Amino acid sequence: MPAGSAKTEAAFSVAPDGQGFALPSREDLAWAEARVLAAAQTSDRPVVVVQGLGFVGTAVAAVVAQAALDSGGPRYFVIGVDQLTPSGYWKVARINAGQSPFESPDPGLAPAIHAAVTQAGNLCATVSDQVYRFADVIIVDVPLDVVDRTVAGQAEPQVDLAPFQAAIRAIGRTMRAGALVLVETTVPTGTTEKVVLPILQEEFARRGLAETPRVAHCYERVMPGPRYLDSIRRFWRTYSGIDAESQAQAAEFLGTIIDTRAFPLHRAADPVASELGKLLENSYRAANIAFIHEWTLAAEDLGVNLYEVVDSIRVRRGTHDNMRYPGFGVGGYCLTKDSLLAQWSLKHLFGSDVQLAVTLEALRINYLMPRHALDLLAGLTGGLQGRRIALLGVSYLAEVPDTRNSPSHLFVQELEAAGAQVVAHDPCTRLWPERPDIPVDDDLDRVLGQVDGLVLATPHRAYRQRPAQDWLRAVRPGTVFVDAMNILDDDTALRLHRAGHKVAGVGKGHWRKKGFHQ
Amino acid sequence: MPAGSAKTEAAFSVAPDGQGFALPSREDLAWAEARVLAAAQTSDRPVVVVQGLGFVGTAVAAVVAQAALDSGGPRYFVIGVDQLTPSGYWKVARINAGQSPFESPDPGLAPAIHAAVTQAGNLCATVSDQVYRFADVIIVDVPLDVVDRTVAGQAEPQVDLAPFQAAIRAIGRTMRAGALVLVETTVPTGTTEKVVLPILQEEFARRGLAETPRVAHCYERVMPGPRYLDSIRRFWRTYSGIDAESQAQAAEFLGTIIDTRAFPLHRAADPVASELGKLLENSYRAANIAFIHEWTLAAEDLGVNLYEVVDSIRVRRGTHDNMRYPGFGVGGYCLTKDSLLAQWSLKHLFGSDVQLAVTLEALRINYLMPRHALDLLAGLTGGLQGRRIALLGVSYLAEVPDTRNSPSHLFVQELEAAGAQVVAHDPCTRLWPERPDIPVDDDLDRVLGQVDGLVLATPHRAYRQRPAQDWLRAVRPGTVFVDAMNILDDDTALRLHRAGHKVAGVGKGHWRKKGFHQ
Repeated sequence: MPAGSAKTEAAFSVAPDGQGFALPSREDLAWAEARVLAAAQTSDRPVVVVQGLGFVGTAVAAVVAQAALDSGGPRYFVIGVDQLTPSGYWKVARINAGQSPFESPDPGLAPAIHAAVTQAGNLCATVSDQVYRFADVIIVDVPLDVVDRTVAGQAEPQVDLAPFQAAIRAIGRTMRAGALVLVETTVPTGTTEKVVLPILQEEFARRGLAETPRVAHCYERVMPGPRYLDSIRRFWRTYSGIDAESQAQAAEFLGTIIDTRAFPLHRAADPVASELGKLLENSYRAANIAFIHEWTLAAEDLGVNLYEVVDSIRVRRGTHDNMRYPGFGVGGYCLTKDSLLAQWSLKHLFGSDVQLAVTLEALRINYLMPRHALDLLAGLTGGLQGRRIALLGVSYLAEVPDTRNSPSHLFVQELEAAGAQVVAHDPCTRLWPERPDIPVDDDLDRVLGQVDGLVLATPHRAYRQRPAQDWLRAVRPGTVFVDAMNILDDDTALRLHRAGHKVAGVGKGHWRKKGFHQ
Repeated sequence: MPAGSAKTEAAFSVAPDGQGFALPSREDLAWAEARVLAAAQTSDRPVVVVQGLGFVGTAVAAVVAQAALDSGGPRYFVIGVDQLTPSGYWKVARINAGQSPFESPDPGLAPAIHAAVTQAGNLCATVSDQVYRFADVIIVDVPLDVVDRTVAGQAEPQVDLAPFQAAIRAIGRTMRAGALVLVETTVPTGTTEKVVLPILQEEFARRGLAETPRVAHCYERVMPGPRYLDSIRRFWRTYSGIDAESQAQAAEFLGTIIDTRAFPLHRAADPVASELGKLLENSYRAANIAFIHEWTLAAEDLGVNLYEVVDSIRVRRGTHDNMRYPGFGVGGYCLTKDSLLAQWSLKHLFGSDVQLAVTLEALRINYLMPRHALDLLAGLTGGLQGRRIALLGVSYLAEVPDTRNSPSHLFVQELEAAGAQVVAHDPCTRLWPERPDIPVDDDLDRVLGQVDGLVLATPHRAYRQRPAQDWLRAVRPGTVFVDAMNILDDDTALRLHRAGHKVAGVGKGHWRKKGFHQ
């Protein structure tokens, strides 16, 4: 047995929850590849390959596998592709075992994958690049990230396109000329026409194919939460293609997986417009959050409850009801990077010197938001050195286990730098892949009983619905409460204050005015 | 006759449309005052005095005068107050003649004033400060402005409170202790409690009154346009008072002039919260416009029609449908100053060092927006020196004659500085009070026939509905078109381009990509 094979056999791919999967041997790989290729080749249904089995790709694969013919049977044979690497293989292994790679609050995801793999038999996963050969549609859901998300407003964003380019080239090497490559990945504007198309053209030329590759862009708007699959099936989508054929093919395919009667597709003039739409809509939301942050600081100095003021303004439908609320910070995969992709593409793909100055300043502000909660905490504890502080919520969104780029991450870094000890709690996940060294407890009373202060960082139901007497009962005397997500109501805050605790809230100037922090 | 009286007799108060009113003699003044005081004193209806007869005060006076009892008759006797100055008296004179001081696209304003003055007899105007003596409610609608609106992002905003303080003191000198002072003026946060209340308390103390003055704040949300009066009667309002009595009295009064069944009042916790709401909502809108401006520049370099992209995003109701469009700039009385009031009050009324950095940067960007249209124009004309340029639209809003802080103002300053000659057109007004030296023509064909280039600056219907052939027929060969407000459709732009004209549009990257500027 050659050395390379031995190394492969020795390596493991470990899921975030700790489950390990041995990377398969060369023989097992060859056998698995032969099996999936045979299935694809002999499929009597169109073959859809989803490249990249992350949060988006997995859900897209499940939705496409669920698409039904009028007669009721599955419309497509779906193959998910990820890499034969420690960080990629476990997703392939799980799907082939009929499991969802990820926890999801959508109760439909795991059963959809299980049914498609084990009953309908129209979903499988592979590490083989050969499957593109048999695909009618190839959906690209591989990641494309900036090198450092924290540069906004300070330095020029960097993008390493190489992994994305390699993924596209792998498709171009084997795909059929008439198949559609549908890019769903959020990409720098211009990527579909200036990066994807030229690579596919090069590979077609190398293979002697005279046809123009069919390429379209249709960005995803998935929303983590209990309606995750519906955020694909039943939501607005924008798409465009490099030519009329690509556009028509994309529209036809999307019409079979999306409820386009309720949510008609929008065809953008070209892929650049479609790509720009995604970056703009996420930048808009990030900028709106940053805007409200400086008014949060103002409201605290003015003694005003900014949540109440925002509510009083949001009655103005169509002009003001998108106003955001004060909070702990911005997390997730998209809002923390998409503006950087936009800025990068202006210079590097279009030679433009336009600076998205407000947009990038907004990202910088959002990145720094958790520091304000830390400042409140430091003010009320009289210094963080040696304090034990509970972080209540490590995910960035209520009721989801998703911790990607959670503001809690920056918060604990700063907390540790200030000499405090962190005790983390989350009702939705015991895993914090970005900080595996910090155990996430799920026993709130146990956590509360051992700390000097706490920050409410995620608006999980378990915190919002907890009665005042339960907080009072569980904490030690003189505990400092910092509510960064409007979780405690005024009555609870008053009772905590009266019981000798110090209470502050992000955007809760009225608590400060009433002396709850004293 | 004393010299002062002779001077008064010689002075005129001139309305923006040129009509002059001789300031009244001392004898006439005394007679008019005696008459209005007698009417107020003997009124069998509650007396409402509106202080300040500008755009807002005039409309508020009309709406209050229209408020009816269940039995059908007028509910209030309304007195409008303005100053015996060249800039104030003409409004008083006009109202007493049964006319609206201002042109308005709302067909209801002038008849409402005429009917109340000449038929119901429950509306009049005066320059006398003595009328507050008989008032049950005093609505403050006097202006409160920053010293220089152009400082945003560059220098600290300055506010001269003195005229506002003098107006409040005039009320305090004579008002009854039980009457309500209702501040509608947009004020720096804290003004009601820290400026208005202390002045009234001082005057009450001086007069030996033991009662606490009743003071409330309820900011207006009037919207210039054809539904101007309805923007008072049928829209959401936020209010608060300095104490429970003031709040109750304000709510009761507002309930008689606003349709609170369809638009329930929102009572803010205190006047600071109410004041902050107004500044925040206008700052939000201004910031949203600034945000889209840098994406406008990006879209032009990317070859994208940003209007189309924004439309494709605005389908996301509740999170993205407040997104603004590219445009010529921001005008009007409020959006160009309210953020400055907020910043000023933080430091000067609360001793806070919070900087509304993004908010003020947004104002700076909005102020500079017309320069982008100028840059496009300069690029297409190959230099503006000696060119004749048509400015199509001097008001800041479609179908209204309102030119206050119109971006056209900055635009022509820059145009003149670049050596061009300006020819102005507007279908809604022939008056440009800020630039009385520039005649505003209303014959579009005549204007178009004499210029080298034009900018479409206001989306008036007369421009939007003009057919392509009418533009083609009226302009000279090789005319440069800059569409700053999405007025020309793609087909018209193409036809203009094919006829040898150069065409560019703010946010219209697709026109540039197609070479319409060549």
